[in-house]
Amino acid sequence: MDRSSLSELLQKFSRHGRELVRRHLPFAASGAGAARSRAEMMTDMARDLISNRGEASGVAIAADLLRLYETAGESDRATFFAALAAHFNPDRSRLVAAWRRFETDGWSAYPELARATEAPRQELFRRLNLAPGGTAALVRMREQLLGMREMPGVALVETDLAHLLQSWFNRGFLSMQAINWSSPARLLERVIGYEAVHHIRDWTDLRSRLDPPDRRCFAFFHPAMPDDPLIFVEVALTDAVPASIQELLAPDRVPLATEDFTTATFYSISNCQPGLRGISFGHFLIKQVATDLQREIPGLKHFVTLSPIPGFMRWLRTDDPELAQEAEAEGMSHRDRLLARALDYFLEVKDPEGRPIDPVARFHLGNGARLEQLNWMGNSSEKGLRESAGMMVNYLYDLPAVEELHERFANRGAIPIGKPVRQLMTKLESHSKSMEFQG
Amino acid sequence: MDRSSLSELLQKFSRHGRELVRRHLPFAASGAGAARSRAEMMTDMARDLISNRGEASGVAIAADLLRLYETAGESDRATFFAALAAHFNPDRSRLVAAWRRFETDGWSAYPELARATEAPRQELFRRLNLAPGGTAALVRMREQLLGMREMPGVALVETDLAHLLQSWFNRGFLSMQAINWSSPARLLERVIGYEAVHHIRDWTDLRSRLDPPDRRCFAFFHPAMPDDPLIFVEVALTDAVPASIQELLAPDRVPLATEDFTTATFYSISNCQPGLRGISFGHFLIKQVATDLQREIPGLKHFVTLSPIPGFMRWLRTDDPELAQEAEAEGMSHRDRLLARALDYFLEVKDPEGRPIDPVARFHLGNGARLEQLNWMGNSSEKGLRESAGMMVNYLYDLPAVEELHERFANRGAIPIGKPVRQLMTKLESHSKSMEFQG
Amino acid sequence: MDRSSLSELLQKFSRHGRELVRRHLPFAASGAGAARSRAEMMTDMARDLISNRGEASGVAIAADLLRLYETAGESDRATFFAALAAHFNPDRSRLVAAWRRFETDGWSAYPELARATEAPRQELFRRLNLAPGGTAALVRMREQLLGMREMPGVALVETDLAHLLQSWFNRGFLSMQAINWSSPARLLERVIGYEAVHHIRDWTDLRSRLDPPDRRCFAFFHPAMPDDPLIFVEVALTDAVPASIQELLAPDRVPLATEDFTTATFYSISNCQPGLRGISFGHFLIKQVATDLQREIPGLKHFVTLSPIPGFMRWLRTDDPELAQEAEAEGMSHRDRLLARALDYFLEVKDPEGRPIDPVARFHLGNGARLEQLNWMGNSSEKGLRESAGMMVNYLYDLPAVEELHERFANRGAIPIGKPVRQLMTKLESHSKSMEFQG
Amino acid sequence: MDRSSLSELLQKFSRHGRELVRRHLPFAASGAGAARSRAEMMTDMARDLISNRGEASGVAIAADLLRLYETAGESDRATFFAALAAHFNPDRSRLVAAWRRFETDGWSAYPELARATEAPRQELFRRLNLAPGGTAALVRMREQLLGMREMPGVALVETDLAHLLQSWFNRGFLSMQAINWSSPARLLERVIGYEAVHHIRDWTDLRSRLDPPDRRCFAFFHPAMPDDPLIFVEVALTDAVPASIQELLAPDRVPLATEDFTTATFYSISNCQPGLRGISFGHFLIKQVATDLQREIPGLKHFVTLSPIPGFMRWLRTDDPELAQEAEAEGMSHRDRLLARALDYFLEVKDPEGRPIDPVARFHLGNGARLEQLNWMGNSSEKGLRESAGMMVNYLYDLPAVEELHERFANRGAIPIGKPVRQLMTKLESHSKSMEFQG
Repeated sequence: MDRSSLSELLQKFSRHGRELVRRHLPFAASGAGAARSRAEMMTDMARDLISNRGEASGVAIAADLLRLYETAGESDRATFFAALAAHFNPDRSRLVAAWRRFETDGWSAYPELARATEAPRQELFRRLNLAPGGTAALVRMREQLLGMREMPGVALVETDLAHLLQSWFNRGFLSMQAINWSSPARLLERVIGYEAVHHIRDWTDLRSRLDPPDRRCFAFFHPAMPDDPLIFVEVALTDAVPASIQELLAPDRVPLATEDFTTATFYSISNCQPGLRGISFGHFLIKQVATDLQREIPGLKHFVTLSPIPGFMRWLRTDDPELAQEAEAEGMSHRDRLLARALDYFLEVKDPEGRPIDPVARFHLGNGARLEQLNWMGNSSEKGLRESAGMMVNYLYDLPAVEELHERFANRGAIPIGKPVRQLMTKLESHSKSMEFQG
Repeated sequence: MDRSSLSELLQKFSRHGRELVRRHLPFAASGAGAARSRAEMMTDMARDLISNRGEASGVAIAADLLRLYETAGESDRATFFAALAAHFNPDRSRLVAAWRRFETDGWSAYPELARATEAPRQELFRRLNLAPGGTAALVRMREQLLGMREMPGVALVETDLAHLLQSWFNRGFLSMQAINWSSPARLLERVIGYEAVHHIRDWTDLRSRLDPPDRRCFAFFHPAMPDDPLIFVEVALTDAVPASIQELLAPDRVPLATEDFTTATFYSISNCQPGLRGISFGHFLIKQVATDLQREIPGLKHFVTLSPIPGFMRWLRTDDPELAQEAEAEGMSHRDRLLARALDYFLEVKDPEGRPIDPVARFHLGNGARLEQLNWMGNSSEKGLRESAGMMVNYLYDLPAVEELHERFANRGAIPIGKPVRQLMTKLESHSKSMEFQG
Repeated sequence: MDRSSLSELLQKFSRHGRELVRRHLPFAASGAGAARSRAEMMTDMARDLISNRGEASGVAIAADLLRLYETAGESDRATFFAALAAHFNPDRSRLVAAWRRFETDGWSAYPELARATEAPRQELFRRLNLAPGGTAALVRMREQLLGMREMPGVALVETDLAHLLQSWFNRGFLSMQAINWSSPARLLERVIGYEAVHHIRDWTDLRSRLDPPDRRCFAFFHPAMPDDPLIFVEVALTDAVPASIQELLAPDRVPLATEDFTTATFYSISNCQPGLRGISFGHFLIKQVATDLQREIPGLKHFVTLSPIPGFMRWLRTDDPELAQEAEAEGMSHRDRLLARALDYFLEVKDPEGRPIDPVARFHLGNGARLEQLNWMGNSSEKGLRESAGMMVNYLYDLPAVEELHERFANRGAIPIGKPVRQLMTKLESHSKSMEFQG
Repeated sequence: MDRSSLSELLQKFSRHGRELVRRHLPFAASGAGAARSRAEMMTDMARDLISNRGEASGVAIAADLLRLYETAGESDRATFFAALAAHFNPDRSRLVAAWRRFETDGWSAYPELARATEAPRQELFRRLNLAPGGTAALVRMREQLLGMREMPGVALVETDLAHLLQSWFNRGFLSMQAINWSSPARLLERVIGYEAVHHIRDWTDLRSRLDPPDRRCFAFFHPAMPDDPLIFVEVALTDAVPASIQELLAPDRVPLATEDFTTATFYSISNCQPGLRGISFGHFLIKQVATDLQREIPGLKHFVTLSPIPGFMRWLRTDDPELAQEAEAEGMSHRDRLLARALDYFLEVKDPEGRPIDPVARFHLGNGARLEQLNWMGNSSEKGLRESAGMMVNYLYDLPAVEELHERFANRGAIPIGKPVRQLMTKLESHSKSMEFQG
């Protein structure tokens, strides 16, 4: 930050902020000193914020600190995080004393132990939230902390902030809202940027996802970030479980009448906030969308996904390099062999905790969905071919069964499968037997 | 709860809830057993809620548990709280292990120590918040916990819930809204019930507080409780600092034109949620109302309160029983002596921490206001006479000075006084001297 | 209006308004002169409003004129109306010329004839609508015109205003909104005042009409009067066609669960704006409420009213004075004779146009409803006994049949009756025959 | 419309509509017959709509008729309009009778004369407005009527509809709303299409008009067309009266801070609804925007336009073909001569009513603005050079003077000029004198 932009920034500061910057100004002039100094300023502000002074003018100090933070470079931020890790820990002697009392008095001494264990960083983050836009700024700060997690001490800071965000972004505080062509342009612009599964090219493409009568989109919002979705899901309404994304997004399709819809397909789910990693909303969103659509359109019978198999080819390259190579080279051949290996991939291959290694499968099966159908050439795009040999999969949410399936999956790793997958298995088996037999 | 109301309740339960109640039903029939059993049901639900099962059907279990809780009697609740205190503590062996590692490895082991210290009760409360209306239910639960805080173990539960509420009701999440005659009746009905300082008799009286052009009312709301204010302040707009509440609320006054307003008087501040005791919003509200009114009505120069002196007569009865007795008997005499004692009460008498003993004084001075004016017969109602010999006081918020006054008060106990108080002191002194002289 | 209130009023006037008042001020001082003068001022403003000047500063002049009008007394208004009748008629020579051309050229000359026929009053009213609150003020003005309709010339003014209101209050511009306990107090206060059928005593009584789960209320609003309903209907949801208002409004009833509702009863319809007399919204409102409720609660099978028979006893006093006297004296006796006469009253007695003489019957039958059920002691209140010998009637709206029934009633005066009325007729006949026989 | 699309359409029809179409179906099959038949169907529906039947099922018939109309071709529409002109005129004998009575009785017979003069078409249009979207459909119908105004009879229909729209789109019913980057995409998409002065290329360009802190946009909306603006104005906030559109829209400009704004420039005003031609909102919009901005940003001192001179070069080509040709050929030379001619164009050249011939000048001067400044190379685009030799003009709205200037202009054709224009005149005169002198 050069002097002119610093002085611009200063104009927005509170009296307290300006005084503080002035105190540090000698350093601000020179190169290395300047970097050190901005981190120092932020650290001083952080200290003030959790002091007595912070009680009276918390909003102003929080706003100043976040303003400084948001315009800081990576090295300033790293230094600031290091300071938070070093100087905002609990008071060790108080902590030891509380532990001693807990050892002698037991649970009655627990409240003081809990209080003594909490790091002042938590109070710092709570007070930073007083600034306008504070919540969104803290979510971005966690994103940056996650990016620096390997640096010494950063994990302490990140853990504390994650704990707070987990509590603040409780599903009970979120509201689900439809996103459509009447939504604010400011919000839609973000949706274009956030879509992670099937890229949205421009406003015309966006409109084709939101406006036709056979398309829906829903998102979770936090009241402190009303223009910024946390997660959204795109839904297509059809009269059959769709087998390919090309077909589903075909621009020249004729939308059905509402009374002909039987199937709602979740064909794209995008998490929007990297700073909320590990705080899971997806299953809440899918279930609420399914429940609400069911009420709105009583004719809906099936709630399915049309999902990628992002890890299949990566795994195949290790497990069966020859087939992988052939699949990549020839594109659409080896249908049965690849389908058979995909079934293995879903049903046989496990991670150390005994769960499927495909992240999308883990997510939906973990929500209580079942593996319904495997679709050859479900995604014939370059990306689809490269990642999953062009296959896609439908997970089916049978709402009344979801709870039980979830428990079985969580407790025993049981993977429920639907009739189409079962039929595919039978067919492939008899085929492979006949192959064997012929062989 | 008799069998018929139980069965009504059951209809609203989820499948899981109904099964659970059925399991407990033998007990539910008989008297004592029933009580024991409902608490047991709640405890079982609480266990399920923080288990794997709670992940898949958290919303339903949380709703069931809160439904059972809300219709439970005091003894059931006490038993339930005891179970939360006994069985939802951290895992002791994990906690001890984390402590050992912290002793050897230092702060790098802190994240695990913090995690191991957190009681599963916190996760329980976070999941209860998934139910519709969960936040409000937890606020009421804290109110009941506070009422039973002396019972063994309840303090543990209350501390954990308080910690969470402190985090959730962060000022950054609250919105300030005007309350006026166009507000929803449902909300206004609550305002009538919550007003704690100057009783609102009925809807006509309410209207006189909200609708005239020289009246305003503002409240803080949490997004999860949109119909239920957390705190509200009633404001009168006048052309001078008001000296009595009778005058201020006179129904036959003629409201001034907007351009003649010079003074905004906060004449009533009511906290609405006993379950949020200890979480302070008042100073944020006053400052934001002052800032917003200033912008709306540029002619406003003074922001003052017209406040009661709730502890004065109680103190005087101990300190000067004779004068107290006379004041009570004669009502409006002994003006100067009582004013002099009130000055002592504000400026000389201190609590163990060196702060004024009057709670209202502590609040406003702690916010950075100054003691501006003492008003003889400011409140001639029966309550006013009994509590404060009919006196009222104005605290003045000088916005640019607030931060500094707050710090001086917080650090040194300094009590700033305004010109009217200063003049009163001089007058009373000279008077008392002349009295001495005469005597 | 004395001088002080005049000067207060003047402060709110535009420059143009103040100049105008000053010009008239000599008259304003004295008694009769003053009256003459205010009407003159209004007339001058009206002239300015439809002149060139009105184009540039129409909003200000319209506001001034309405302000003067709203605070005027009845005699000023009468004089003002007389001026509107005398001086704001079409230009007679232009009208005669247009007529001549129409006589020679036929319909091609019609546009100029139509324009020449329109009185400048219409443009005046359109420009008055520019003032904030203008629409509501014009509705009130029509109310006052209707009250003076017998005075010479007033009918001209009233006709012109009615024509405009008819066009502005087109059903296509109205929005139907639910009124409930979350509606603005300002609006609910009006509902209390407007309820014309079953008096609402206070806010508690109002709440019992709006808040219980088996009660609904809907109103039509015009966008220019968002706080002021045009008409509202109160609805009770039950599991049977209700036979008495006492039962329907019983405060100790237990509301049914939503899935048990089979019948929606319109038990009170109130027109709120006397100034919109002759502009009919009632049938639109009933049909839209029925359609919307049907969609919301699919279990609803019957849409009925529970209506008074306001003209029965008046008619009976002429038609059968003896029975009328006995009914009044004895209250609940003569059941069958009174029911029989009520059937006559509905089905036999006609006004000169061949329609029933009961206004409520004319309204509902004219909407396409049928006469479903006659209820003895349906309204045992003093008013119910006095007006209709305590009887009430259900009109039933069979939505698919409504159009055809309306046409038959409109074209042939056919009155459709329901099974309960048919059974009552049979029973009364056989009874009367047996009576005769016995006699 | 082929048979399949007809049957699709039929599905949306009411029972009444379907019957009607069936009656006409034989014709619908063949070519010419079909066209005749659709117009006949529409005419039949129109008749039903103003009959008794229309009272009971007006909404359904209106919706059916508009559906048929909206999908009709030009020839069907022409036939339908011809039917409206021929068969929906007033009853001639009633009209003659009313005239006779008026001739003998005078104004007391006026109400009946007014009623008898009104064509049933007006009632037809009022009932068409009952359909959802009816108001917008009628606005489009007027657009089509205006396009066929030369056909026999169409003028009658158009006049009647215009009269109604004039009444419905009264400024008192419109609401002004800001349009910004948080507006619904559906609305913004329309703004892109409607912008008539400075073309908006795409969503990025749109954003540059709405989102920067020195840009504003405001529109009038009618409550029955909430997504469709009637007129909008784009505003730029600067610290000086702008002299060129290139500068004003420069994408790399740095927006000023709010406290530095002194000037609001209306640089683009677009009427959106051709069907509302002749119903003027522009002056209301400009004045309200100016008033509201003044209140929001007290530092604003000047309200000006930056306007094209659309008729200048057309006039010059006739008046001074040689100069026009040179200007077109050479682009930026002949500065003083062209400026001098532009002054003539504004100040000397008059239309038959004595007003300036430039339509934009007539609009702003007619609103009470003054001719403030002439800007050489204010618009160097191809269109700007072609239409106005690259010149632009600022009209200035001096709010307190607007009313008087409007009256002077309306009554005497007086054109007020600002200091810059005056200085330009002086400069050009002395220059031309010195030229003469030299010559």
